[in-house]
Amino acid sequence: MTLHHFTPTHYFNTHGSHEPVLRIQPGDSVVTTTVDARGQDASGAKVAVGPNPQTGPFYVESAEPGDILVVHLDRLTPNRETGWSSRMLAENSIDPWYVPSLPFEVDREVVIWRVDTAAGTASLVEPEGRLDHFTLPIAPMLGCFGVAPYGNQAISAMTSAEHGGNMDYRGFVAGVTAYFPVFVPGALFSLGDGHALQGDGEMSGSGVEISFEAQFTVDVLKGKRAGWPRGENADYIFTLGNARPLDQAVQHATTEMLKWLQADYGLTMREANLLMGCCVEYDLGNMYDPAYTMVCKIAKRFLPA
Amino acid sequence: MTLHHFTPTHYFNTHGSHEPVLRIQPGDSVVTTTVDARGQDASGAKVAVGPNPQTGPFYVESAEPGDILVVHLDRLTPNRETGWSSRMLAENSIDPWYVPSLPFEVDREVVIWRVDTAAGTASLVEPEGRLDHFTLPIAPMLGCFGVAPYGNQAISAMTSAEHGGNMDYRGFVAGVTAYFPVFVPGALFSLGDGHALQGDGEMSGSGVEISFEAQFTVDVLKGKRAGWPRGENADYIFTLGNARPLDQAVQHATTEMLKWLQADYGLTMREANLLMGCCVEYDLGNMYDPAYTMVCKIAKRFLPA
Amino acid sequence: MTLHHFTPTHYFNTHGSHEPVLRIQPGDSVVTTTVDARGQDASGAKVAVGPNPQTGPFYVESAEPGDILVVHLDRLTPNRETGWSSRMLAENSIDPWYVPSLPFEVDREVVIWRVDTAAGTASLVEPEGRLDHFTLPIAPMLGCFGVAPYGNQAISAMTSAEHGGNMDYRGFVAGVTAYFPVFVPGALFSLGDGHALQGDGEMSGSGVEISFEAQFTVDVLKGKRAGWPRGENADYIFTLGNARPLDQAVQHATTEMLKWLQADYGLTMREANLLMGCCVEYDLGNMYDPAYTMVCKIAKRFLPA
Amino acid sequence: MTLHHFTPTHYFNTHGSHEPVLRIQPGDSVVTTTVDARGQDASGAKVAVGPNPQTGPFYVESAEPGDILVVHLDRLTPNRETGWSSRMLAENSIDPWYVPSLPFEVDREVVIWRVDTAAGTASLVEPEGRLDHFTLPIAPMLGCFGVAPYGNQAISAMTSAEHGGNMDYRGFVAGVTAYFPVFVPGALFSLGDGHALQGDGEMSGSGVEISFEAQFTVDVLKGKRAGWPRGENADYIFTLGNARPLDQAVQHATTEMLKWLQADYGLTMREANLLMGCCVEYDLGNMYDPAYTMVCKIAKRFLPA
Repeated sequence: MTLHHFTPTHYFNTHGSHEPVLRIQPGDSVVTTTVDARGQDASGAKVAVGPNPQTGPFYVESAEPGDILVVHLDRLTPNRETGWSSRMLAENSIDPWYVPSLPFEVDREVVIWRVDTAAGTASLVEPEGRLDHFTLPIAPMLGCFGVAPYGNQAISAMTSAEHGGNMDYRGFVAGVTAYFPVFVPGALFSLGDGHALQGDGEMSGSGVEISFEAQFTVDVLKGKRAGWPRGENADYIFTLGNARPLDQAVQHATTEMLKWLQADYGLTMREANLLMGCCVEYDLGNMYDPAYTMVCKIAKRFLPA
Repeated sequence: MTLHHFTPTHYFNTHGSHEPVLRIQPGDSVVTTTVDARGQDASGAKVAVGPNPQTGPFYVESAEPGDILVVHLDRLTPNRETGWSSRMLAENSIDPWYVPSLPFEVDREVVIWRVDTAAGTASLVEPEGRLDHFTLPIAPMLGCFGVAPYGNQAISAMTSAEHGGNMDYRGFVAGVTAYFPVFVPGALFSLGDGHALQGDGEMSGSGVEISFEAQFTVDVLKGKRAGWPRGENADYIFTLGNARPLDQAVQHATTEMLKWLQADYGLTMREANLLMGCCVEYDLGNMYDPAYTMVCKIAKRFLPA
Repeated sequence: MTLHHFTPTHYFNTHGSHEPVLRIQPGDSVVTTTVDARGQDASGAKVAVGPNPQTGPFYVESAEPGDILVVHLDRLTPNRETGWSSRMLAENSIDPWYVPSLPFEVDREVVIWRVDTAAGTASLVEPEGRLDHFTLPIAPMLGCFGVAPYGNQAISAMTSAEHGGNMDYRGFVAGVTAYFPVFVPGALFSLGDGHALQGDGEMSGSGVEISFEAQFTVDVLKGKRAGWPRGENADYIFTLGNARPLDQAVQHATTEMLKWLQADYGLTMREANLLMGCCVEYDLGNMYDPAYTMVCKIAKRFLPA
Repeated sequence: MTLHHFTPTHYFNTHGSHEPVLRIQPGDSVVTTTVDARGQDASGAKVAVGPNPQTGPFYVESAEPGDILVVHLDRLTPNRETGWSSRMLAENSIDPWYVPSLPFEVDREVVIWRVDTAAGTASLVEPEGRLDHFTLPIAPMLGCFGVAPYGNQAISAMTSAEHGGNMDYRGFVAGVTAYFPVFVPGALFSLGDGHALQGDGEMSGSGVEISFEAQFTVDVLKGKRAGWPRGENADYIFTLGNARPLDQAVQHATTEMLKWLQADYGLTMREANLLMGCCVEYDLGNMYDPAYTMVCKIAKRFLPA
């Protein structure tokens, strides 16, 4: 139950079997920092290249393929006052015939936001016509995190798959517990791509991108299997499918939930179908990446005791 | 501003240019009933064949192609005490390799629910193992409604398109205003397929299916164009894309929202992109039909005054 | 075995349960004409509105729901010397980010082709830079034909489904036999949208569009069921799936072929899987429509005797 | 112009920046061997683990990111007499509701084929009911080959992307020239997964899997850019898109062809659209993988001189 303070000196742009930066025990916590999607740190200095530089990987002792890695997100705090976001929705989120109407003239520009963590707000810094002084509540979340994938792969941090990755799900806020399948010894967990806030789907290719101070706590569920990332908050359990098209992401997440309900909640396949048929909910994660993310949720109040 | 009481004598299973059952004026309200998805009425008698028998169509005077039909859902009340739902998730919502694990032995059976509108609950009538006495809050919603489509088409009420249809969106509850493109003179609005409650996506192919007493009020926005169904509640404006795969449904809904923000909220294309990039939300409507539904939402509190 | 000569006086833009223009017997042949996709006839006069005006429907005596309608395409002959095609590939066939590079300045223009049926060629009439005097072999084919759909639907001739419709498959040339599921008494067959030639997918939304003189011969397979359109030429049997995305069109066509091989070629499910696993071929039909088309083929020389 | 003889001692299951096994010059040829998809060599001995063990990577001197690697497939010869194939079509290629009808009882078994390269045939070894003594012409092709991907990734040889990989395109036979984008110095080309024959789409997850003796010749096109794999045979130029759903694979391949026609054949965007609109053809590559493959083709006889 050690609390580690880890200051990163280098970052990876893939989830893969990289040399671990720290070895930790189940139950340990880590306080560390993440840089933003383009590699800028708390001071605004560019200390890494994009996409989505990852802090880590952390080797979790005792985690073996076939286990589940538990990652509790204890704290996700923007550690600077300035964030940025994109200005144009992604072409793939728009009807093809309407794409030429998009504002390509600003596609490469970013919008600067002043992030006030005390007030819990982000505000546009520059005049933006009818959106002048536009202010939104912040809801800091982790865009890209996960473990090393199977099969000796190294997968870009700009996409996602069974190992997690760039899922950009608004639900990954502080207080949430994430679960990942373990594919390699030590799991090799890494994290990055913090957002002060984000719309569903990350349709413009960014949230309000910012660096974080983050604390997380790990654990290992020995011999518990998962096929896809899972999560849990006060009100819901949820599963994430990462694939394309969204239909397939739904299939992965729904299948994973059916399996979870049977394995851990004592439901038969028949009962799990009945429960999900009337109670299931879905959220849209990332729809910008090569891979898209759909989230399948069940409210805890509907789960059997 | 007449209040019509209409008792249906026959039902259509398509949205098309059928002989109207009633002619009403903009501003008029209609109190009527709908039968359930298989044609059973308030008494449980089967008075129509499925799928999703529609009450109507109602001819709205002055509605012309190129206008928008406004339909305010004043009241949606289950008018019997028994609903039914399916037992098995749809094969298309599950990973293909996992499909053979589904409980096909109960695929044709239905689950019976006792619906108590006073208490606001629906409860399983028969023992269901770990789900015995399972009780859920009801949230009555309209599964299938819309107008006659373009091009002299008659489209099955088991699917959806630009004209609306079987969208199965949980957001269509009483108090909501829906907007439809008008494709034929009089719009020819019809409605049916009430659910006492439903999971996202109607993944099992049903909600808790039940007959309704319904009241709605119509209006016409002359010369206002829409490409897809839209809606509005106290907190959100939203657009619905009906297509397959879900990716394309997202494209339709997102494009429609971009156009709406520009046409009615005074935003430039650039501002609309910026707003949606950081604030947009999505819900999953029907994912059972030939066509699927995605809903694009913007919170009203983020819209310019 | 009557040979009917039928001159159309009106055209429908949907496949639906329209009043038949002629009643014919199994074994009968019909010589008739079709207008082009925009309604221009042999003289170039616009006698109908688009999309894809259909000649018919023809009521085939004895055809009942649950039968198969056989349509042999005896002859498909362009009956004028001028065809037209589109100039721009469809936005949906291009990477979204590349769409703005398409030549929108010519999107509404058409290209005129001189069609010489004696020589078997089509040639560009106007100078086109490096494509001056561009000449292609013609291969006349029927773009849109089919029967009335199920469920009292009337489906636009610009799309396709189980009943056929706008499949735009290059394989539907003279000499081919098409098979359609029968959904309504008399089947209600209609045809139109002739192409002097076409690229795969009809990616620009048109082939070389032209009016036809066409002859076809019908038959009915009593009590033989099909789920999707099928076809047969000298070398192949094939099935067509119409849906979106293409993945789903493949699923429909592949499933239909598995069923056909078992029903008519005496293969067990196991043998049909083995055969298709090593011998199946696929062609791309229409990829422009709301619905797309994939064609699943098995060479006759690999079928058991 | 050296002819190298290379005997592999180890194999990789990813395309990535692995230590090269040999450094060769542009113009050089290599004679080597590949093992089958499960790692069995010419003697039938299992010398590597699956999926699709790759021979290589070969470092091609002078190849730099932004160049194109040319790989001419000189010779692809099965070097043993026994191949194997799968027995069941993949669940994802079948309508979801029909999946439970598949012959799961034989899903794990393989079919053994006797491959006679002199006669050019493959024949079933065991009795198979109505397919007894089933014999097919062989058409040896390379299922999986490509270069190291961008961004320091290592991507499983069971899937495909911009770098090539498991495309399973029947068109990759001896005599064909393949072109790959170069993402890393030396390109790092590798190859494997030979098929004596294969159906379109590799719908069962295998062709007739066999080990090869292979010869290929490399070259480098300095400063020529490609976005996706390309190819060329006596009659066609073609491009390959690897993605999911098939619609997106078509978009990648079509976009790549538009760019190629402009870059190397002197066509304007307008002319390239016109040419493709009337002449383009598509083939289905792999539809079994996580990523699917579509091939866009233009006949050389229609290209400007």
